[in-house]
Amino acid sequence: MEKLVSLCRRRGFLFQSSEIYGGLNGFWDYGPLGVELKRNVKEAWWRDMVTGHDELSAPNGAPSPYEMVGLDCTIIMHPQVWKVSGHYDLFCDQMVDCRETKKRYRYDQVQGRWAEAKEKRVFVTSVAEEVEEDIAKRGLKCFNLRNKDADQIKWDGPVTSLDKIAVEDLSSAFGPDAKEVGTLTEPRDFNLMFKTIVGAMGSEKDAAYLRPETAQGIFVNFKNVLDSTRVRLPLGIAQIGKSFRNEITPRNFTFRSREFEQMEIEFFCHPNESAKWYQYWRDRRFKWYTDHGLAGERLILRDHDPDELSHYSTGTADVEYAFPFLPEGEYGELEGIAHRGDFDLRSHMEGKLDPASCPLEVQKDEHGKPVHRGSGKDLTYRDDLTNERYTPHVIEPSAGADRATLAFLCEAYCEDEQPDDKGKMQTRTVMKFHPRLAPIKAAVLPLVKKDGMPEIARDLYRVLKKKMPVEYDEKSAIGRRYRRQDEIGTPYCLTIDGQTLDDQTVTLRDRDSLEQVRVKLDDVVSEIEGRIDG
Amino acid sequence: MEKLVSLCRRRGFLFQSSEIYGGLNGFWDYGPLGVELKRNVKEAWWRDMVTGHDELSAPNGAPSPYEMVGLDCTIIMHPQVWKVSGHYDLFCDQMVDCRETKKRYRYDQVQGRWAEAKEKRVFVTSVAEEVEEDIAKRGLKCFNLRNKDADQIKWDGPVTSLDKIAVEDLSSAFGPDAKEVGTLTEPRDFNLMFKTIVGAMGSEKDAAYLRPETAQGIFVNFKNVLDSTRVRLPLGIAQIGKSFRNEITPRNFTFRSREFEQMEIEFFCHPNESAKWYQYWRDRRFKWYTDHGLAGERLILRDHDPDELSHYSTGTADVEYAFPFLPEGEYGELEGIAHRGDFDLRSHMEGKLDPASCPLEVQKDEHGKPVHRGSGKDLTYRDDLTNERYTPHVIEPSAGADRATLAFLCEAYCEDEQPDDKGKMQTRTVMKFHPRLAPIKAAVLPLVKKDGMPEIARDLYRVLKKKMPVEYDEKSAIGRRYRRQDEIGTPYCLTIDGQTLDDQTVTLRDRDSLEQVRVKLDDVVSEIEGRIDG
Repeated sequence: MEKLVSLCRRRGFLFQSSEIYGGLNGFWDYGPLGVELKRNVKEAWWRDMVTGHDELSAPNGAPSPYEMVGLDCTIIMHPQVWKVSGHYDLFCDQMVDCRETKKRYRYDQVQGRWAEAKEKRVFVTSVAEEVEEDIAKRGLKCFNLRNKDADQIKWDGPVTSLDKIAVEDLSSAFGPDAKEVGTLTEPRDFNLMFKTIVGAMGSEKDAAYLRPETAQGIFVNFKNVLDSTRVRLPLGIAQIGKSFRNEITPRNFTFRSREFEQMEIEFFCHPNESAKWYQYWRDRRFKWYTDHGLAGERLILRDHDPDELSHYSTGTADVEYAFPFLPEGEYGELEGIAHRGDFDLRSHMEGKLDPASCPLEVQKDEHGKPVHRGSGKDLTYRDDLTNERYTPHVIEPSAGADRATLAFLCEAYCEDEQPDDKGKMQTRTVMKFHPRLAPIKAAVLPLVKKDGMPEIARDLYRVLKKKMPVEYDEKSAIGRRYRRQDEIGTPYCLTIDGQTLDDQTVTLRDRDSLEQVRVKLDDVVSEIEGRIDG
Repeated sequence: MEKLVSLCRRRGFLFQSSEIYGGLNGFWDYGPLGVELKRNVKEAWWRDMVTGHDELSAPNGAPSPYEMVGLDCTIIMHPQVWKVSGHYDLFCDQMVDCRETKKRYRYDQVQGRWAEAKEKRVFVTSVAEEVEEDIAKRGLKCFNLRNKDADQIKWDGPVTSLDKIAVEDLSSAFGPDAKEVGTLTEPRDFNLMFKTIVGAMGSEKDAAYLRPETAQGIFVNFKNVLDSTRVRLPLGIAQIGKSFRNEITPRNFTFRSREFEQMEIEFFCHPNESAKWYQYWRDRRFKWYTDHGLAGERLILRDHDPDELSHYSTGTADVEYAFPFLPEGEYGELEGIAHRGDFDLRSHMEGKLDPASCPLEVQKDEHGKPVHRGSGKDLTYRDDLTNERYTPHVIEPSAGADRATLAFLCEAYCEDEQPDDKGKMQTRTVMKFHPRLAPIKAAVLPLVKKDGMPEIARDLYRVLKKKMPVEYDEKSAIGRRYRRQDEIGTPYCLTIDGQTLDDQTVTLRDRDSLEQVRVKLDDVVSEIEGRIDG
């Protein structure tokens, strides 16, 4: 992983945000190659899911043909959206404060173990990586004992997280950085939405939130989409856009960051067919990742256990990837595919608003009474063929664009042994991106800087450039130029050599197989396009 | 304009954000067609400026060949970025409050006129559209006079904005909604950046801001880009992304909204060559708009007068468009091309930080003294050919993606008279988008639903769909289907008719000229691609 992080920085895939000012925890910038890689990930998704979707046929596994359209909503929406969706009240992590150190911890991330010594019983805690060792050390500190007296402490039960002990027992907890016992407060909710104020008045009444997910923008526009197009259900509405979560502990490179980009679909269908559609999207979305190179044991599709499901969900599956920064055997989520029933549309129709806990101005009815509902708008659907009216069920495939990009980066990173220009074996670093995702599709390389080779190479470069991102390089030995392209994942190198002058062919070198074939100059564009489209 | 706004809503180009909750002033969502249109605008810009740019040749008018790369930075950056850039202290509008009504007004948007009656001299103000009439009416109210006594008021001088009178005179001002004279406060600064808090502590120390422009992300990454690529100056770094400004009075559809998307280039070059590069970008960017259909009198390139320029700028020009919602003869800015000298890079190297007015933790030197500078990082450039080291000058072409999209929408809207299926003249509404920008490139239409026409049409649709967004429509009379496509700006309609069965050709109808030609089925893709690329 260190090698990958270093390559990402060195070759311009990813930088820490505001690095010249010391960086900002949980925020990452994409450099020249990173921005092209991520654009390709998003573009592949959009083409496969939206513009390239054929609404006349049922793709393999789909219960029937269906429609797909796109949408692009604002990051700041009306605050009632978040009240009704439940995010305002429930999108929280629980935190405990330390009265002594003024530090704040996520309730479930503090680990600890019961210990008894000198007739005191204490829950000794730690937030260190090497948690067992640290707890043992903190235990000595807590009871004011030396190393050699460690056996005076009687440990009781396994290491467990702080939120698993009773709230009354918090007064017996020894904080991770504290000097005294009992400095941790009771847990309280910390909402993960970033808050801001809209408008000139600057009062709490004008509070608004940066969206923590793009999904709600689709639900509140469901009626607008139906009214402004001729689409019928089953229908998917797709959106790509940034979301924000004020994570307590951002970490693992771009995996858990505070500003990130989502690729979400809300798929609306008849309740009777929703089980079949859930199955379809579960399989279809998993296949999308394998189609783009995340095959093998590192990628899994994990069905949630019944007790993991939200109360409204009859099924959820995660596409997960074994990121190299995770412990052996652990996987990180790339995408969740959830059966959400009619929960969201119903909430936005009639969801309950509790004005007491809402700082927003609540809608009032004609008698001036607050209306404890969602929008009050009819978000049901009438099938014009059967005349049936119903509240659609929703299947939600929700993917992270940054997480997908990071997984493609991790999967692509390879080292192998290849002979250099002099036949000596050397370690080669190569990014084996799927050709569709590679930032640069081809490099045009004149073998030497004479005999008219650069001129032919430049002409070829210009022809290709009109169709795809391509590089031209005439500096240093050809082997070194190949290595440079391997390291940024360029799938095809085109070399103009002596034979080109004779027969108008160039060498096409494949990054992965290292196979070299000769292609006519006139056929290069179609050859490369064909290979990229697979 | 009303017709356009209505069409945008009806056909799914633009919706008011959070409409089912009453909307949110200054925020707009893109519907299914709008999102494709805006994607095409951004994609055309990115291809023309970045991936399609040929760094080996100097384009027409350019002083020399140059390089272009992309970047994608976060919306939330380190707050010192905004301190150093000047936005924290200076990115303000001046506001006055009314102590009586608690209303708040932009200082320069309150209009007024001096009036004398009953031995009092009052500056009577208004924020109404019909400002002269309203001031006359407010004058009567102010002096408690009836209509017939209007001539008792002696008016003095022209209508002028509130910020043009002396601050001492504010006590003689009659507020736009007030009942008493002298209720307006002295003006105070209102910063237009949206503020939020990052991290769990929730204190002012952790304040951060949503970027009001994407440009600063490029400046703070300048060194990272140089270090991670083999690019040399002259070099342009391009970025597309959302920015946020808490506008006091958002208006004119998406023209002045609080959340918007920018397409910005920072072009770094040698100081001696910056005047030439300024001229180049000024002309190049203007041509980009004319190339995409904004030709004619409605588009102008306006050079700023010397007294309009920032203190560091030696030249700025705006590309402006005569939006239909503006008064006759007025233009709205689509893009500004500014010569910014070395102001930004120099600020981020050594810009002054005043810790007294900054709530942020200020960097300290090894003696614990606050460092009153930018990042302290070296952002100069060394030319490896001449060995010269210098602080580059910057040319900044800064475009609004939403404004460009809106201008393309306004320019595209046309009405003409065309015969319907029965030969009767009818008003046709047509969106004459440049083919490259049109949301849907082609529609495939079987003339009738029999004789095998739908089957051929569906096959053609599927072939096209792999290459571009395309629609299939077999419902209702062919003339009506043409109209539907005209109204969403589809440039080409392909009709499968009786002759298709005989000779494997289809009718290609051009949206603008209405010319119909026959094209072989096998040639349709290349014919359409050729027409789109122009």
